[in-house]
Amino acid sequence: MCTVMKFNQSVLQDMSDNNNNDNKVWKWHIQDPASQKLTWNKPPKSVLVIKKIRDASLLQPFKELCIFLTEVKDMIVYVEKKVLEDPAISDDENFGAITEKFCTFRDDLDDISNRVDFIICLGGDGTLLYASSLFQESVPPVMAFHLGSLGFLTPFKFDTYQSQVDQVIEGNAAIVLRSRLKVRVLKENWEKKARLDEKGIILTNGDTESRRKSVQYQVLNEVVVDRGPSSYLSNVDLFLDGHLITTVQGDGVIVSTPTGSTAYAVAAGASMIHPNVPAIMITPICPHSLSFRPIVVPAGVELKIMLSRDARNTAWVSFDGRKRQEICHGDSITITTSCFPVPSICFRDPVNDWFESLAQCLHWNVRKKQNQLSSEDEEF
Amino acid sequence: MCTVMKFNQSVLQDMSDNNNNDNKVWKWHIQDPASQKLTWNKPPKSVLVIKKIRDASLLQPFKELCIFLTEVKDMIVYVEKKVLEDPAISDDENFGAITEKFCTFRDDLDDISNRVDFIICLGGDGTLLYASSLFQESVPPVMAFHLGSLGFLTPFKFDTYQSQVDQVIEGNAAIVLRSRLKVRVLKENWEKKARLDEKGIILTNGDTESRRKSVQYQVLNEVVVDRGPSSYLSNVDLFLDGHLITTVQGDGVIVSTPTGSTAYAVAAGASMIHPNVPAIMITPICPHSLSFRPIVVPAGVELKIMLSRDARNTAWVSFDGRKRQEICHGDSITITTSCFPVPSICFRDPVNDWFESLAQCLHWNVRKKQNQLSSEDEEF
Amino acid sequence: MCTVMKFNQSVLQDMSDNNNNDNKVWKWHIQDPASQKLTWNKPPKSVLVIKKIRDASLLQPFKELCIFLTEVKDMIVYVEKKVLEDPAISDDENFGAITEKFCTFRDDLDDISNRVDFIICLGGDGTLLYASSLFQESVPPVMAFHLGSLGFLTPFKFDTYQSQVDQVIEGNAAIVLRSRLKVRVLKENWEKKARLDEKGIILTNGDTESRRKSVQYQVLNEVVVDRGPSSYLSNVDLFLDGHLITTVQGDGVIVSTPTGSTAYAVAAGASMIHPNVPAIMITPICPHSLSFRPIVVPAGVELKIMLSRDARNTAWVSFDGRKRQEICHGDSITITTSCFPVPSICFRDPVNDWFESLAQCLHWNVRKKQNQLSSEDEEF
Amino acid sequence: MCTVMKFNQSVLQDMSDNNNNDNKVWKWHIQDPASQKLTWNKPPKSVLVIKKIRDASLLQPFKELCIFLTEVKDMIVYVEKKVLEDPAISDDENFGAITEKFCTFRDDLDDISNRVDFIICLGGDGTLLYASSLFQESVPPVMAFHLGSLGFLTPFKFDTYQSQVDQVIEGNAAIVLRSRLKVRVLKENWEKKARLDEKGIILTNGDTESRRKSVQYQVLNEVVVDRGPSSYLSNVDLFLDGHLITTVQGDGVIVSTPTGSTAYAVAAGASMIHPNVPAIMITPICPHSLSFRPIVVPAGVELKIMLSRDARNTAWVSFDGRKRQEICHGDSITITTSCFPVPSICFRDPVNDWFESLAQCLHWNVRKKQNQLSSEDEEF
Repeated sequence: MCTVMKFNQSVLQDMSDNNNNDNKVWKWHIQDPASQKLTWNKPPKSVLVIKKIRDASLLQPFKELCIFLTEVKDMIVYVEKKVLEDPAISDDENFGAITEKFCTFRDDLDDISNRVDFIICLGGDGTLLYASSLFQESVPPVMAFHLGSLGFLTPFKFDTYQSQVDQVIEGNAAIVLRSRLKVRVLKENWEKKARLDEKGIILTNGDTESRRKSVQYQVLNEVVVDRGPSSYLSNVDLFLDGHLITTVQGDGVIVSTPTGSTAYAVAAGASMIHPNVPAIMITPICPHSLSFRPIVVPAGVELKIMLSRDARNTAWVSFDGRKRQEICHGDSITITTSCFPVPSICFRDPVNDWFESLAQCLHWNVRKKQNQLSSEDEEF
Repeated sequence: MCTVMKFNQSVLQDMSDNNNNDNKVWKWHIQDPASQKLTWNKPPKSVLVIKKIRDASLLQPFKELCIFLTEVKDMIVYVEKKVLEDPAISDDENFGAITEKFCTFRDDLDDISNRVDFIICLGGDGTLLYASSLFQESVPPVMAFHLGSLGFLTPFKFDTYQSQVDQVIEGNAAIVLRSRLKVRVLKENWEKKARLDEKGIILTNGDTESRRKSVQYQVLNEVVVDRGPSSYLSNVDLFLDGHLITTVQGDGVIVSTPTGSTAYAVAAGASMIHPNVPAIMITPICPHSLSFRPIVVPAGVELKIMLSRDARNTAWVSFDGRKRQEICHGDSITITTSCFPVPSICFRDPVNDWFESLAQCLHWNVRKKQNQLSSEDEEF
Repeated sequence: MCTVMKFNQSVLQDMSDNNNNDNKVWKWHIQDPASQKLTWNKPPKSVLVIKKIRDASLLQPFKELCIFLTEVKDMIVYVEKKVLEDPAISDDENFGAITEKFCTFRDDLDDISNRVDFIICLGGDGTLLYASSLFQESVPPVMAFHLGSLGFLTPFKFDTYQSQVDQVIEGNAAIVLRSRLKVRVLKENWEKKARLDEKGIILTNGDTESRRKSVQYQVLNEVVVDRGPSSYLSNVDLFLDGHLITTVQGDGVIVSTPTGSTAYAVAAGASMIHPNVPAIMITPICPHSLSFRPIVVPAGVELKIMLSRDARNTAWVSFDGRKRQEICHGDSITITTSCFPVPSICFRDPVNDWFESLAQCLHWNVRKKQNQLSSEDEEF
Repeated sequence: MCTVMKFNQSVLQDMSDNNNNDNKVWKWHIQDPASQKLTWNKPPKSVLVIKKIRDASLLQPFKELCIFLTEVKDMIVYVEKKVLEDPAISDDENFGAITEKFCTFRDDLDDISNRVDFIICLGGDGTLLYASSLFQESVPPVMAFHLGSLGFLTPFKFDTYQSQVDQVIEGNAAIVLRSRLKVRVLKENWEKKARLDEKGIILTNGDTESRRKSVQYQVLNEVVVDRGPSSYLSNVDLFLDGHLITTVQGDGVIVSTPTGSTAYAVAAGASMIHPNVPAIMITPICPHSLSFRPIVVPAGVELKIMLSRDARNTAWVSFDGRKRQEICHGDSITITTSCFPVPSICFRDPVNDWFESLAQCLHWNVRKKQNQLSSEDEEF
């Protein structure tokens, strides 16, 4: 079932040929982002179907799709256990026979990372964020359908789903590799309270190392550090490759992938970055400075965020809008580009899909054709 | 004199291992931008010295530097002919003996592209733009001194020039490869007028092909298309990989490299992009639309700009602020990332130099430490 | 024909009652901008009709309107001479009889300032800018029709023009008083060249005073000072009530009325200001500084713009996009709010008309209703 | 102790003279904001001193000032009770004798609104916000000292306090009248839960009127409606004079005075408005739309904010950063310009003070004088 995806990231590559004359020719080879194609070594056999729960409008499409995949395409369908436990599904006798053929799993408990050839998402950008969160390492290719209106992450329309799924199974599709951020949160002294007795007496002094707790996340859109419920400004230091580069005073800061540049970051004033650009975007939220313009740094750097020494309050961090938690003095958030991108299947290709989403989702550069902004008309 | 520069662009690279088990591991290898080092196969022997002309404050540093390079370091010094023709230099008898050892050349006439091991610039970001314009193909490494205040392209201070030059010659320096844009301007019917007789009668109909004129430029900062002296809005179509992606109505549009993102583009509202990010920035100038946010596209795309069919006026194009020319209906400007970057020698490293310039040149995120922006202080 | 317009600008007014007890009650009376109504002392008898010239689509509406005003409403119609000289009008025999009843005038030659009760504009925001330019002092109320799409200055649709004009004549209409800027350009040494002989010898030294030339304009949208055809940044000093408040380095600066805030200023990044706010907006064009946010100052200040002492190039100034001219060292541009606003007749009222234009002309806050910008959905 | 302040707001005023000829002259009289002066009918006798509590650095200045006012200037000094209860003050025997002469009061309990001739604030912009909150109706003139760095609301330096206070008492000072917003929060069905029994059965149906709760605030900077601790976007409708003008989707919305335009609003992207402009600023916080530019509306309008019908979550409102509370479906926030401004005593005058604060607090238009942003230098 091996997938061989030829990944040609649209990057600059060195061709520093060591020819035998003395002078070096500085020359790069640059590839076209549109050239990335999905190819299969063996035909795909298993598919994970992700459905937004508690949305009645998705039930019929979900059932149709599962029947098509199982009966017509003879695929092994993986579905999350809680999806099938929805009474609207479990009580449907007609659908019951099919569901018995499904492989089920439970989020956080069962590892399906090596068992799925590709993923189909039904129901909005959130389903793809959820799919991403299921795979902390390598992610299978994802085909995402929007049921309502086009999303940045959900380019496929459902009404022609059969032919679209056929195309994907036949390897006839373009791919955009969406980079993710690997985020490690290191909490200092996290066990302190647990080791106090009821009167607050420290029971054990322990080893400092043992008091630290480190958790790790893969995020597809962004890490947000903000002031949370506090009414004080957040005050965090931002380090790049170990150097303090600036202090963020304001409502917070967003560290996003190019994919995330069109999500919360764009609301905070960021420029939009195509997902094929290997970069990390840093965007302040309502910064306490007129000159704090967003910046774009190379994908290869390591960022670290900590509370500033003189911060009066804690900060809060969230990951693709989830797992919100408090950050205290001494805690750190370390962010690098993940080695495990999300291979996202394109409806047309990485360039056209993106500009279509800019127009549909963000109304980018929608304008009147006439000269309302101009008072420059000599003939009035 | 061969330079072998190990170019590790901070990009995402494919490691799609075709291992013989069925499952593919999607994994990238990401490199640190700070790891790019200047190395020499053979010690450098020849150096091109570029000096801003008509700036009296540069004369003494220029002479000192040339004497140091020639007498102490035993280098072959290349200088542009018009620099030596400046009376302040040609009339200096003490300096005269040295200048006789120089190799001179004339811009646009003599080809020095394979004769120079590295370049030294004296006098401001403009000198580096000029150096770039001298090399349409491969560019030797550039070491740029600012005499006044720090620039984005001129990280070196002159007062310790001797030790700094020593370090470079010894290969003890970091490099940032600054991408350039290759721009081709195609003018339609450019000979039309020349082929009319005095009364305006067309003399020859000619071959359409022969009427086209194509010129090519390498730009380090940006291509600007604007309305020029016209008081009407410019109205140009922007194509990406052959597809019309949007129409720009407004004062114009800037297509810039990451290096150029901190030049004119930042004034027009762009986010700042580190030069190691392989990308192209598109920034409108005073757009006739509230929603025309700047965008960042992969380095590998091809952009094309043409007048819109319904444009009432021509537009004007310039390249790093030079060679300003008119663009008429039917003309096109095609832009891709050049294969020939400018290897720019760092004072410290690509990351620290850039943040130092953001702070010094743009006062990025300069702010008061106190809470003036906040009215959130419970204790007033 | 006297018009008594009750002008209730929506401003804060002092009610500092000097009651005989010791304590003062600080209290203001604030009026609603929607309360301004057009009223006539005597029924209006004369109307100036302004038509965009060289626009064939306007011919039929223009003729219809003029016949209606002359024949049905028995009004004296004023038309600019050049409008009637258009062959499409002068050759129309049917229309000829009517035109003989018109009063004609020539721009810049004939003074109609006291002869017109109100103005009707046909054809786009430019017609209202032109109407404004005809009246350097008091301006009669203006009723402006858009023929294509809604403009900020042209709220009326033509298809129901008869009933709309009836309403206006009956005084059944709201008014918004649009402030104008009075701009005085003072040129130093303007006769210098004229007083040189053919060889460039100065013939007269003259009195310095006599060499100055002062011209004055009334602008409805904005004064723009920019770099003109120069490729250097403009560099101008901005004075407020005699104090230097800042230096503008960049493409230029826009000084606009609230009416002009939705024209060129909005393209340069300004916030939009409702025309009833008594204020002047100062907006830089592509400023050479991250922190040069636009500012809004009270209508009562005096602004002055001059070239900075160290400006390397001249600047250019224009007034509502017209009368473009060069500004040299020593010249000054003085700007105050004019005593003579433009009384602009509303389609509905000042508030609704403005928000309708924001939506139609600028697509203000157009968005998808769904949560594309958010990744915050716990249930994905 | 009557204060006669001649308030000449820099506004446009009607001079629609009803002269007996037929034509009306449209002419305004516009006043200079710098002309507002503080004048006293009788010499001021009582002064309220406000000190930031729990700030040790303010103790000595506070004591010095109080001794000066009491002993030298023979004024009646009002101080808040809790200020004197601070042990650092109550334990100071030397200062004890003086404090016995003070009039004390308790916030929320004692009414001092008619007993104070002017106010002195020590310690930061927050002290002036607090002073404002003490006076729900007429506010005495305020003189505000910054001890650290200049604030927008605290223009006086403490080191020459004696001569500065002398000037104020002599009526030798300029005044800027800072408008406030009157905000009424109307909570629907606020007693509903209290009137349910333990099983959720409605016990009383009551009178609808009796279930409403209305509270009112005077704010000097801004009203903020945001999503509070929720991770969902806020979704609120904005009404102006009863009409729905737009729906805000995003982190929230700021309704601010011109004074507040340089506080939180500027962080969210607003233009800065001089406090003399009679206007209200509406600024979205991270809006879910590229085109939601801030707007400025006349001071005379009535704004209303309610949760949108389809909002999935509640919103939160705060007033000058205080009194944070939840807003549910059916609740409304009504905002108008207050009749009771804060008369703020200027250090120099309204114009110079403001531009000094822009420079010092916000680093407005701080820039390098050189041409870093330009690549336009022909001579490089």
